[in-house]
Amino acid sequence: MSKAIKGFTVWLTGLSGAGKTTLARLLEKELSKKAFQVEVLDGDEVRRHVSKGLGFSRKDREENIRRIGFLCQLLCRHGVVVIVAAISPYRNLREEIRAQSYGRLIEVYVKCPIEVLIAQDEKGLYERALAGELKLFTGVSDPYEPPMCPEVVLYTDKETPGESLYKLVERLKELGYID
Amino acid sequence: MSKAIKGFTVWLTGLSGAGKTTLARLLEKELSKKAFQVEVLDGDEVRRHVSKGLGFSRKDREENIRRIGFLCQLLCRHGVVVIVAAISPYRNLREEIRAQSYGRLIEVYVKCPIEVLIAQDEKGLYERALAGELKLFTGVSDPYEPPMCPEVVLYTDKETPGESLYKLVERLKELGYID
Repeated sequence: MSKAIKGFTVWLTGLSGAGKTTLARLLEKELSKKAFQVEVLDGDEVRRHVSKGLGFSRKDREENIRRIGFLCQLLCRHGVVVIVAAISPYRNLREEIRAQSYGRLIEVYVKCPIEVLIAQDEKGLYERALAGELKLFTGVSDPYEPPMCPEVVLYTDKETPGESLYKLVERLKELGYID
Repeated sequence: MSKAIKGFTVWLTGLSGAGKTTLARLLEKELSKKAFQVEVLDGDEVRRHVSKGLGFSRKDREENIRRIGFLCQLLCRHGVVVIVAAISPYRNLREEIRAQSYGRLIEVYVKCPIEVLIAQDEKGLYERALAGELKLFTGVSDPYEPPMCPEVVLYTDKETPGESLYKLVERLKELGYID
């Protein structure tokens, strides 16, 4: 790395249905207005492109997250702001990514109690997971390891998307990433 | 795609040992001097990152090239100039990538007769391939389909790296990508 890194990564982690993609898109809009180059990397979408063939075992999930991390590095070093929306359930992997981020990663814990998610269950995934139809489903049949020291926690069961966005943007200002 | 694409891709294709990486690095230096954001995607390197586990069957090679194409799109739409150095032996895949490049791809055929490469054989790969030790080795035990209408052909058995670089830069000027 000879050049100074100008981009940064906003990494949204949390359970399925917690609101990661919604918030990623809202933040994308907000930062694009400020003339940043912004790229949203959605976990599901990345799987279709660079992680075709990978499944949901711990090893495959880790590899998928590593690849997202590689994309972040690639984009950040050219000044792009990368917003990741991915369950990314394992703490060690998120820490591995952070260690490679040149100190320019903001970990955002998109937190919503699983009972609320099960009750909402917009995509019907929790029902299927609880019925044993979906193996290795995070929070039900596969672990989710919450961040220890995330830069931001968004309580999406209590906050509106607008309120969460406001908190996130304020925190980015506080940390000096945006004006 | 709402934004205008500002980046472009210089795609170097050719046999192993033909000089793709050397030329990619020379071009990178040249374009960096002109204040472009430049990223070199080396086929072997990409394999270590987003294509771990893929082999050298036609299907796996195609998937690898598709992933490189995805990275090009990702970077180009944020204004980065991407220089790809990858054997990329199959014409249909290179055409697929071109079709997704918003008309901003320069295909460069790094051409060197296989007899010359076998005689040089700096990494000893051709010897191993000819001995049958390396299966699916492009040009020996796997096909290489030369480009039909590349924007540039570099004859690396006859030109010095400096001469090839000069030709390539002049062609980029001619095509309006650089001043």
